[in-house]
Amino acid sequence: MIDAISVITAKRDGRELTDRQIDWLIDAYTRGEVADEQMSALAMAIVFRGLSRAETARWTAAMIASGRRMDLSSLSLPTVDKHSTGGVGDKITLPLAPLVAACGAAVPQLSGRGLGHTGGTLDKLESIPGWRAELTGGEILEILANPEVGAVVCAAGEGLAPADRKLYALRDVTGTVESVPLLASSIMSKKIAEGAGALVLDVKVGAGAFMKTLAGARELATVMVELGVDAGMRTVALLTAMDNPLGYTAGNALEVAESVEVLAGGGPSDVVELTLTLAEEMLAAAGLHAADPAAALLDGRAMDRWRAMVRAQGGDPAAPLPRARESEVVSATCSGVVTGLDAMAVGIAARLLGAGRLRQGEPVQAGAGVRWHVRPGDPVRVGQPLLTLYTDDPSRFGAARTALDGACSVGDTYVPAPLVIERIGPERASVGS
Amino acid sequence: MIDAISVITAKRDGRELTDRQIDWLIDAYTRGEVADEQMSALAMAIVFRGLSRAETARWTAAMIASGRRMDLSSLSLPTVDKHSTGGVGDKITLPLAPLVAACGAAVPQLSGRGLGHTGGTLDKLESIPGWRAELTGGEILEILANPEVGAVVCAAGEGLAPADRKLYALRDVTGTVESVPLLASSIMSKKIAEGAGALVLDVKVGAGAFMKTLAGARELATVMVELGVDAGMRTVALLTAMDNPLGYTAGNALEVAESVEVLAGGGPSDVVELTLTLAEEMLAAAGLHAADPAAALLDGRAMDRWRAMVRAQGGDPAAPLPRARESEVVSATCSGVVTGLDAMAVGIAARLLGAGRLRQGEPVQAGAGVRWHVRPGDPVRVGQPLLTLYTDDPSRFGAARTALDGACSVGDTYVPAPLVIERIGPERASVGS
Repeated sequence: MIDAISVITAKRDGRELTDRQIDWLIDAYTRGEVADEQMSALAMAIVFRGLSRAETARWTAAMIASGRRMDLSSLSLPTVDKHSTGGVGDKITLPLAPLVAACGAAVPQLSGRGLGHTGGTLDKLESIPGWRAELTGGEILEILANPEVGAVVCAAGEGLAPADRKLYALRDVTGTVESVPLLASSIMSKKIAEGAGALVLDVKVGAGAFMKTLAGARELATVMVELGVDAGMRTVALLTAMDNPLGYTAGNALEVAESVEVLAGGGPSDVVELTLTLAEEMLAAAGLHAADPAAALLDGRAMDRWRAMVRAQGGDPAAPLPRARESEVVSATCSGVVTGLDAMAVGIAARLLGAGRLRQGEPVQAGAGVRWHVRPGDPVRVGQPLLTLYTDDPSRFGAARTALDGACSVGDTYVPAPLVIERIGPERASVGS
Repeated sequence: MIDAISVITAKRDGRELTDRQIDWLIDAYTRGEVADEQMSALAMAIVFRGLSRAETARWTAAMIASGRRMDLSSLSLPTVDKHSTGGVGDKITLPLAPLVAACGAAVPQLSGRGLGHTGGTLDKLESIPGWRAELTGGEILEILANPEVGAVVCAAGEGLAPADRKLYALRDVTGTVESVPLLASSIMSKKIAEGAGALVLDVKVGAGAFMKTLAGARELATVMVELGVDAGMRTVALLTAMDNPLGYTAGNALEVAESVEVLAGGGPSDVVELTLTLAEEMLAAAGLHAADPAAALLDGRAMDRWRAMVRAQGGDPAAPLPRARESEVVSATCSGVVTGLDAMAVGIAARLLGAGRLRQGEPVQAGAGVRWHVRPGDPVRVGQPLLTLYTDDPSRFGAARTALDGACSVGDTYVPAPLVIERIGPERASVGS
């Protein structure tokens, strides 16, 4: 007979869990038969003992089986999804989804809200007047099938991998987030349940990322790619740098505005580079080898899709974006070359200013956030504006300034580092194949 | 600021917890501010990372501080307590407490009920008609101060180390029992809070014990002795064998009857040996070097104290003990010498017959249990009765027989092993000192 204690002690003592144990456990936990205090003890044992590839695959499958799967088979276009493990100033989903749709794929992009120092894609889009994140399964399919839209960014329904939803909230308060198999199965159970034919993972690495080391990011990416491939999804991962934040802004409306610049053919070079690299990977994974995303950014096709996508979810793409009522400038205190901008500090400051949440369910400010005026490699002189802080509530400036103290480092020389560090996954088929 | 997640992750990552973290944690857990799922994740991290001597001492002190301490300072006699980590057929507390009282110490013996394969001292005594386990603090002091009694075996009040009570129940269902510092602090927080001046620990080792290896038992005993000594209690531990059950019976009324035999100057030799060895250690720890417990067993003084102790708690020492309605005999299937009787199997069978509980709070049968007719070293012939099973409910015989299958091993030769394996603690002062 299987019970929670025997599963916990098996893992605690370093034994491999059987398929039956995993299936029973995830089902019983979803139904409330296995208690939270039992699951958290098991999660901690997994932090120490790990899960084998077979255990991780079964765990992921059991979490998918705890709920419904989306069925995208009625769509005639190839479907492709993207997931980022979370970075500061990471607004890439916003230009990317309409860009890839403009190149011929259907992009079902189920996203989350921000918690922690990285912003949430849904929070960003909700700064657009009228835009709504909650769609029914029927609405999602309708938007994806519409040849003038083809991309949707919305909230994942309650029915998708409910075991993961419950386990994620538990791990968040029990110090058991930091486990590669638990992280990988959490992300991949949702992505596989979404039912896209292909998936590109953007695994962030660096001081502002969840994974601080290249080795850790590589391990996480490898496990996720294995899970995707084993589930029949064409899956690749890019390891990308997250020491400095992306673009020039962190905050909800601030990032929407920057995304629109990219869709208009301009925007910060790093955001453009990452958007195009991910678009190429997504289109290749979707089998659309002839597509030219760079052209689609420049000739307005991506912007047309963006407007159609915003309108399809009730938003007005022409409406002015909300702006914060107050702002403050932080100036340089020495001269030299900017050698780094601490992404973690910027993320924390943006959250403290009101762009993010300290607790689940809190409202966010649409206009709050941080804009930086310099980037690594730029020269700077004493007194020059480095950052502008935005909030509706000026009592928040103090804490944000404290968080940003020393965040911008100035030195003599700056050695540029690549944004895209490594690619993990099956070789990309050549255009001619 | 201290919060549960920072304490969990500190231990998870191998850092030593500070006094402030431990004090806060135990207090917040007792008040319900730290959730069960957080405490169980921490307990699992402690299973892997351990606790240092300083952390264990502070953890124990914090659990004591979560409740009341008993105050025995009004007693004129030296006070001494005993704790066993649990064995099958371990009825030693029953003859031991009145015996040590007969030799001049006051013995406050707060005990528990059985859960698992070992019986509970309170369950055994409750088979005596009228006897009650629940006493007030005032009643305990009154019985201890009475020169004709001086020993009490009763339930620990709710107010004693409530943090341990809560944590013990949690560990029981989360696979986190097996941690030396958590075991040691659980036992010692209650024993220190009871307030006796001296303590003798009987740490069982072997197949029928919680600690299967000598190394594990030695580690547990050492940590407990350190905790006791550091708290100002004269503390010693004996490591004693628990491969074979003690005496000839396991079961509630069965074990009371066997204890009365010992108090009458007879009884099984191993029960007598262990009772006397523990009595000598307790009396030495209490500073009563001139006492002669062997004489007190033979001359009836220990029996007088037993009767007074039973009467003081409402029991009738002259009343006949309950007997099971049904019995069945298990016979030998081969001839030779008994080389072992599996204590774990006997304990499980006794529980299945109704002497113990499968779930907390279940009633137990007074008469149920197992009697073995042979012990290791005895010759045996095919067809000879090996065991008698007792229960009020004959449907239970099948499962008990299955549990006992192969429990009695028969071979060519038997090599006796010592009952008392090792002593851990400060040297015992010589009689003349």
